[in-house]
Amino acid sequence: MQGIASIVMECCELLSNVSEEFGALTRPYGSRAMREANKVVSGWMRGAGMTVSQDEIGNLIGHYQGTGEKTLVLGSHLDTVRDAGKYDGILGVMIAIACVQRLHDRGERLPFSIEVAAFADEEGLRFGTAFLGSSVYAGAFDEELLNLQDQDGLTLREAVRAFGGDPDALKPEGRRDGDLLGYCEVHIEQGPVLEEHDLPVGIVTAINGQSRVGLVFDGKAGHAGTVPMEGRQDALCAAAEFVLEVERAAKAEPESVATVGEVATFPGAANVIPGRAEFSLDIRHQDDEVRERLRDHLKMRAEEIATSRGCGYEWQLRQETRAVPTDQDLSDLLAGAVEDSGIAVHRLPSGAGHDAAQLAGLTPVAMLFVRCKEGISHNPAESVTQEDVGVAVEVMDRFLERVKEGLSLS
Amino acid sequence: MQGIASIVMECCELLSNVSEEFGALTRPYGSRAMREANKVVSGWMRGAGMTVSQDEIGNLIGHYQGTGEKTLVLGSHLDTVRDAGKYDGILGVMIAIACVQRLHDRGERLPFSIEVAAFADEEGLRFGTAFLGSSVYAGAFDEELLNLQDQDGLTLREAVRAFGGDPDALKPEGRRDGDLLGYCEVHIEQGPVLEEHDLPVGIVTAINGQSRVGLVFDGKAGHAGTVPMEGRQDALCAAAEFVLEVERAAKAEPESVATVGEVATFPGAANVIPGRAEFSLDIRHQDDEVRERLRDHLKMRAEEIATSRGCGYEWQLRQETRAVPTDQDLSDLLAGAVEDSGIAVHRLPSGAGHDAAQLAGLTPVAMLFVRCKEGISHNPAESVTQEDVGVAVEVMDRFLERVKEGLSLS
Repeated sequence: MQGIASIVMECCELLSNVSEEFGALTRPYGSRAMREANKVVSGWMRGAGMTVSQDEIGNLIGHYQGTGEKTLVLGSHLDTVRDAGKYDGILGVMIAIACVQRLHDRGERLPFSIEVAAFADEEGLRFGTAFLGSSVYAGAFDEELLNLQDQDGLTLREAVRAFGGDPDALKPEGRRDGDLLGYCEVHIEQGPVLEEHDLPVGIVTAINGQSRVGLVFDGKAGHAGTVPMEGRQDALCAAAEFVLEVERAAKAEPESVATVGEVATFPGAANVIPGRAEFSLDIRHQDDEVRERLRDHLKMRAEEIATSRGCGYEWQLRQETRAVPTDQDLSDLLAGAVEDSGIAVHRLPSGAGHDAAQLAGLTPVAMLFVRCKEGISHNPAESVTQEDVGVAVEVMDRFLERVKEGLSLS
Repeated sequence: MQGIASIVMECCELLSNVSEEFGALTRPYGSRAMREANKVVSGWMRGAGMTVSQDEIGNLIGHYQGTGEKTLVLGSHLDTVRDAGKYDGILGVMIAIACVQRLHDRGERLPFSIEVAAFADEEGLRFGTAFLGSSVYAGAFDEELLNLQDQDGLTLREAVRAFGGDPDALKPEGRRDGDLLGYCEVHIEQGPVLEEHDLPVGIVTAINGQSRVGLVFDGKAGHAGTVPMEGRQDALCAAAEFVLEVERAAKAEPESVATVGEVATFPGAANVIPGRAEFSLDIRHQDDEVRERLRDHLKMRAEEIATSRGCGYEWQLRQETRAVPTDQDLSDLLAGAVEDSGIAVHRLPSGAGHDAAQLAGLTPVAMLFVRCKEGISHNPAESVTQEDVGVAVEVMDRFLERVKEGLSLS
């Protein structure tokens, strides 16, 4: 598979130059770079024997006709964050095209059609909201988003129109699910787990649910030199106690992660006792009950810590999304394909969000993670090996075989 | 003493309107407001029977002639921080003038002269360095400071000249110590200790030494959703552990204070594990050995915490000043005066810096702290009661008696 893998690598490399910025990869929804990327990728789709269309929001859809009526969807997204890596999203699209290319090269038709979806917005860089592309595809588009503005004051409605689509057709645009077999997305892991297990690929069990909280401890500011230790209500000390409790509690709850990523003290001077500490909390788990239990525990501990230190506290739940499990049967087919490739099957949840979570509302979904160097993503240092990409292409190839077998049995 | 105390309160009130800002008290060195303050205060000094001069940096010196050759110096400073309270510095000058006023009203001459020093810069608001006024008076001025620039790019050299002084005369300007009995400064406590002890005044044992450190923990940034708890090198968790150790260690070392006032995480986003935490550490104690022991302990613990978490660490000692003990004999005279006034003697260190620390290089120093509401200072909410001011005037009156007695015995 290294021949096709090297082509996939070259295509990712080439697309990394299709950017709104010189010397960095930044490809937001509806941009000139996005238009150019769709043009390049649709050429590759056609070369792989697909008919190509662009839907109302700008998702690029390649169709490789099968002999039966059902359709299997493969894909990922073509948009990027600012100063992005070369593989997040793009790799999944390119591997999907590569699989079709191999069928096309062999002149092979499967008993089902393959649709390669290259979504136009997953990262949400331009409008600050994610999954615009896949939500339209899945028939789950929220029309209220049409009034969102980008930083130049242009609305999503205007951006859709400028990209050649009809904003009022986004909602009814959704794919009908009657003829779908499922959706399978290949994506870089964006974490270190596969690398630690020395495995090229892994099977995603779920896209984790998430709770995002904004916290405040209110103590009493004072002169760092003149207020004795005993009388203090140091808001940062309260926050420090909480940060360590977050770490302890998340370690005690298997497979959960919890993070304080931001913290600010007020007034924030070296010689002033912090009177106020504001900080963020991010909790994720594949099991919503576990996440909610952890969330409730940490809320209780925040209150206890505040009370014990004579501080006030605020707990503002900013965002909460439920976990999306992948489909057991489709994931088992994918796991079988991994085994067929001589690779140990490792199942892991996805801590990051993916288009598959949107598609799950439409059809059974499965995801294959590809090992990435040091778990780094959303960064130009994002890196995958050609060898691992070769394994992923092989696994997807065998996955198509498995789906075909499954279909003939049913 | 309530009559004279009410005059002191009124004078503080009046001076709070002599400001560079409308509606807020901000009186930096060399400003128009400072010139106006010196003019007003020199009038009050003359009214109290003093001859008045202004030295090369702009310190206002009132001289009340005694019958002997020696001189006792009383005073504090007339400059303020931005948006200051009415009492920090000014109260000490006004109580000194009030004491002389009482002698003058009685037509009394002491066997020593009194010099009331109203220093022109203690806060360092304009040039970012403290004690310009008292360092000149004490003969300890550092000529390299003349090149310091204010935010408009004016040098201290230019500012001194504009204020009527000769910048090249600052260094040799210093007061000769041969004829001095000592220096006694009245100042608001700027802390909550006297309020907690329900006492109007207290005797300062020392102006605390201070260590200021800039610290960094370097961990590894990562996606908050995809990096498992076990593999993390979270720089904020390391910092949190350190913040609690600072609190624990300072509480375990009597009369020490240690504070982390500022903290910043990088990259500093809710969904990113902190890869770097930068924060400040401020340690103070009246005993340099204790402060150094605490500092060394915390440095060792910072290293241990970093090592145990696989983080790098930096420890940058930014500033260190030694403690300045007040003079035992002069402080005992002051304590005697407190007793004479029927007040329990409470001795406490000063966590903040004061002009007395500069004067200690020239002559024995003592300090009387006056209770301030909730320990608040450097803030318009700074508050003292007229009753406490009355006590302070009475104590200083009796202190002059004690010094007179001491002189007649020697």
